[in-house]
Amino acid sequence: MPSSPASEVTVRFEPTGRTIRVLPGTLLLEAAARAGQIIQTPCGGNGTCGKCAVRIVEGRLEPTAVTVHYFSAPQAQKGWRLACQDRVQDDVTIEIPAAARFDSRTKILTTSTGRHLPVKPAVWKQYVEMPLPAQERPEADVERLEAALGRKLRVPLRLVKRLPNLFRENGFKGTAVGRDGELIGFEPGDTSGMLFGVAFDLGTTTIVGTLLELHTGKELAVAAVMNPQVAIGDDVISRISRVREHAVALRDLQERAVGALRMILEDLWSQSGVRQDQIYSLTLAGNSTMQHLLCGITPAALGEIPFAPAHNHALAFRPAEIGLEVNDAAILYVFPSIGSFVGGDTVAGILATNLKGAAKPHLLVDIGTNGEIVLSHNGRLTACSTAAGPAFEGARIHAGMRAADGAIDKFLIADGDLRFSVIGDGTPAGLCGSALIDLIALLLDAGVIDSTGRIQPTDELPANLSPALRARIREDGHAASVLLAPAAASRTGADIVLTQRDVRELQLAAAAIRAGILILLKHAGLTTADLDAVLLAGGFGNFIRRNHALRIGLLPDVPHDRIRFVGNTSLMGAKAALLSLDECREAERLAVETTHIDLSLDPEFQMEFGNAMLFPEPA
Amino acid sequence: MPSSPASEVTVRFEPTGRTIRVLPGTLLLEAAARAGQIIQTPCGGNGTCGKCAVRIVEGRLEPTAVTVHYFSAPQAQKGWRLACQDRVQDDVTIEIPAAARFDSRTKILTTSTGRHLPVKPAVWKQYVEMPLPAQERPEADVERLEAALGRKLRVPLRLVKRLPNLFRENGFKGTAVGRDGELIGFEPGDTSGMLFGVAFDLGTTTIVGTLLELHTGKELAVAAVMNPQVAIGDDVISRISRVREHAVALRDLQERAVGALRMILEDLWSQSGVRQDQIYSLTLAGNSTMQHLLCGITPAALGEIPFAPAHNHALAFRPAEIGLEVNDAAILYVFPSIGSFVGGDTVAGILATNLKGAAKPHLLVDIGTNGEIVLSHNGRLTACSTAAGPAFEGARIHAGMRAADGAIDKFLIADGDLRFSVIGDGTPAGLCGSALIDLIALLLDAGVIDSTGRIQPTDELPANLSPALRARIREDGHAASVLLAPAAASRTGADIVLTQRDVRELQLAAAAIRAGILILLKHAGLTTADLDAVLLAGGFGNFIRRNHALRIGLLPDVPHDRIRFVGNTSLMGAKAALLSLDECREAERLAVETTHIDLSLDPEFQMEFGNAMLFPEPA
Repeated sequence: MPSSPASEVTVRFEPTGRTIRVLPGTLLLEAAARAGQIIQTPCGGNGTCGKCAVRIVEGRLEPTAVTVHYFSAPQAQKGWRLACQDRVQDDVTIEIPAAARFDSRTKILTTSTGRHLPVKPAVWKQYVEMPLPAQERPEADVERLEAALGRKLRVPLRLVKRLPNLFRENGFKGTAVGRDGELIGFEPGDTSGMLFGVAFDLGTTTIVGTLLELHTGKELAVAAVMNPQVAIGDDVISRISRVREHAVALRDLQERAVGALRMILEDLWSQSGVRQDQIYSLTLAGNSTMQHLLCGITPAALGEIPFAPAHNHALAFRPAEIGLEVNDAAILYVFPSIGSFVGGDTVAGILATNLKGAAKPHLLVDIGTNGEIVLSHNGRLTACSTAAGPAFEGARIHAGMRAADGAIDKFLIADGDLRFSVIGDGTPAGLCGSALIDLIALLLDAGVIDSTGRIQPTDELPANLSPALRARIREDGHAASVLLAPAAASRTGADIVLTQRDVRELQLAAAAIRAGILILLKHAGLTTADLDAVLLAGGFGNFIRRNHALRIGLLPDVPHDRIRFVGNTSLMGAKAALLSLDECREAERLAVETTHIDLSLDPEFQMEFGNAMLFPEPA
Repeated sequence: MPSSPASEVTVRFEPTGRTIRVLPGTLLLEAAARAGQIIQTPCGGNGTCGKCAVRIVEGRLEPTAVTVHYFSAPQAQKGWRLACQDRVQDDVTIEIPAAARFDSRTKILTTSTGRHLPVKPAVWKQYVEMPLPAQERPEADVERLEAALGRKLRVPLRLVKRLPNLFRENGFKGTAVGRDGELIGFEPGDTSGMLFGVAFDLGTTTIVGTLLELHTGKELAVAAVMNPQVAIGDDVISRISRVREHAVALRDLQERAVGALRMILEDLWSQSGVRQDQIYSLTLAGNSTMQHLLCGITPAALGEIPFAPAHNHALAFRPAEIGLEVNDAAILYVFPSIGSFVGGDTVAGILATNLKGAAKPHLLVDIGTNGEIVLSHNGRLTACSTAAGPAFEGARIHAGMRAADGAIDKFLIADGDLRFSVIGDGTPAGLCGSALIDLIALLLDAGVIDSTGRIQPTDELPANLSPALRARIREDGHAASVLLAPAAASRTGADIVLTQRDVRELQLAAAAIRAGILILLKHAGLTTADLDAVLLAGGFGNFIRRNHALRIGLLPDVPHDRIRFVGNTSLMGAKAALLSLDECREAERLAVETTHIDLSLDPEFQMEFGNAMLFPEPA
């Protein structure tokens, strides 16, 4: 970057048309972010994964050596550049392909199904008309309000200062707003029907918020965005590492998370017409690392043995403390955690599914970027976490992408060949997690992949394999790959393929989850057969096909009908806490009661994990 | 004042030698305040009382018309000016006579006697050495601390953010600081022996602060200043009026009170070596108006019927909210009030004297700038207030002044003439409240003043009056006055006299208090003879002579030995609350339990007040 300011240049981004003026030397990634266009960089901006590939459509931009090395000459010639490496020099127009983009059109699970939510919020409103001060009614203003409400109140200084004028300007009429025994506001007129709150699910990859009417429990709006922290690293470990390495990273990560919550709030306001100063209550559930980062608490110690978080307690504080602007008196409740990597989202899930009350052994499996597993047996809860997720979210997979426009989201075999459906216009740019599971389950059944996960070389393929499938197998040195769509039929202009390494990534992810499940069962003295129900939670869980998940060994071998999709239980738990203080207290009890099993300290985990690396034999 | 900046001039104040540079046109009062020299202006700066008279000793300063009208030509010639009227023009040196000055050498009651204070503060400290994180000790930082302390804690976000680094930088050793079940700090090293707090008595005229060791109750330092709000008006009514008339006055009054507390804190630090960030707890008791003003709560409604305060509740908030810098986690507890003009100081007094527990009828009389009276009878408390005080504080008395350097503080009759003692070097500048009581009691006994309060004209003086006393009586038109010290023997260069109007002021003040007492007794079905004890509280109470107070009818006619001086009970109550949370809760109960009797609404008060205007017959 030049050391002295120079005249700015204009960068235009397609297809949104957003334009930004920046100094020459600005990284494309940075310019895009400033234009509100978040580009994914799962490798952390090292120029190795290529997920941030963008294309010059007008103007010029000299590639760096890393870019030249990454792309073929014809690709570079067509204008492909790496947003994490290349810097703006002159006015330029850049296309951000769907595969590189983070946007809210992504398929994110925002609705939850499940139990009825009790409505008993901590925040209340009551319209009052007080008698005017007179010789026979000489009470203090606060006491006058207490008499009208029929209850005693604690009133903070901030409000005591405002009440005398508020009362007199409004003829001693208005709506008292309280939280338990504390007065937190006094609004002119009768606003008792307008009592709102927001519940958040803060995921490693996606963030969802929902606006609720607190006195009825009615959901007024839902909004979701991708977590812009993904640009720093696609899983919690890479974000923790960044904080350990760069002192300023904690602040940066916090600002990204808060910025995302702000975008959700803006979206909720515009959907509902509710104003931000009408929000008196917020709740949030996320994994330990995400909650630490949002609150500006260093997760550094989560990056080294014994993975000690700063705290597992619930927190309740003013949203302004992290830069969120809602009503000044609002409180943001952040869920308690169970331990290092079993966080508030899991507690929220236990709460939402009423897991503790299950009569027979129940398993809750939340497959997000991390995989968290909870076993309920005789009212006792045990939990563990596995670093399972990025593969299912499309990361570390050669043609992987999120379930966004251009993603293959489903595979099947018809007429002896692979067929797929694509989100959007039908031309694929890559494949998402659920499609990856489909694909590998189908290729296992067809004998293209064996139980060790090896893609068979052409001379070892089953004799009865259809010619169409056989034609898709390629050999490149000592590893085979499977062609999914040729360059000519791809949005990226490159072949879309499944590599041997992709299969290994999926094996690792699935094995981690299955081994975790088996360890929890073993600790409880149970076997797979004892499981009465497997509850699949999380944004991803909802879209996978149960038979395929069983086929690749992601889930233990239970009858198909015992697997139930329960949706975004993290969000559902956050909503429960928003609607009832009793649920907050219950969440805190559950967090303390649940036994955390650290798989890295469990001597049997490595063995189970090794076993689980083999795909199961066909049923 | 000029509308554009001009070059500044230098103003030097004697006897302190403090020098300040100000713009030409700056009011002398303002220049003095900026130099840290507070000049009293009981009339509110209207140029009518002359208490702010100062003298030019070098340079020149043209008097305004008000000043020319106030002083005689020779006085003006000698350089006398009114600080509230005259403005600086050139470099000038000004002498501020003791009579005009507010300073902390003033006799202010800072010590209290009374019951033993329980030591059970809300704030605690505990030194801990925690086990280091290890595979077998993977707890979160907060849980690690809880285990070491052996108690559960609420930890605010502010601290959760700091603990990870604090623990690691200090080898997981240090001193936890808590308030009840909340962690409020963690200090490196073992600081468990250093636990401090400050209790304040915020009086209308004087402010006292005391630094306590919270775990022992030991008093480390005491400091006092005059309340700089006096420059705005000498009683609460004039300050309330100012707020009603000028929007900015509330802020100004608040800043003056906070500034005074800051000065006290500075003094406490320098006396004790305690640092401000070592203060975790503060308490304050004052009358309702003073507490409102300190907190920035408008007392406007206290200035009109039905005299409704904003609140009577106790408040607890961060001192930073009003601009006091102590430890960030400190809480300032402000006493609850009983009603309009019976405030936190009275509650503190009831608490400190254990009035409620009195076996027989007890009366607590606090004669400060306001007079508050509380009757305890069979465990029931009733209270009222009277606007009694300014006369006893020297205000509205022609030669009145505070008990400062130059004040006559005691009169007696010896060898047939008046004799007096003077605070300081012996040359009088005026007389303070206790001397005024002495003087009028002596003149009543001598027959110079009759029971209606009239100073006898020379032809009606008793025949047996000593010639020396007789020589002091002057007639000026239709009113007589008493010469106390001639101009030649006075610091001010003017005669010091007692005027007929001064006697009337004292009659009004004493009558208000006595009538208030009689009304409380009547409500309880008691008479004066039923009183087992009259507890005289307040800065002033300590210095008056009981027989003289009885002689002028300030107190009801009870045997001499039933009158007890109990000192500054407001400060003592504030100390009790600082040392024990139970005392705070007890104060809140007492404030609610005590019945407030509004004398202005009592039909019998005017009659009792009229009766009390007559001085009692000699015993």
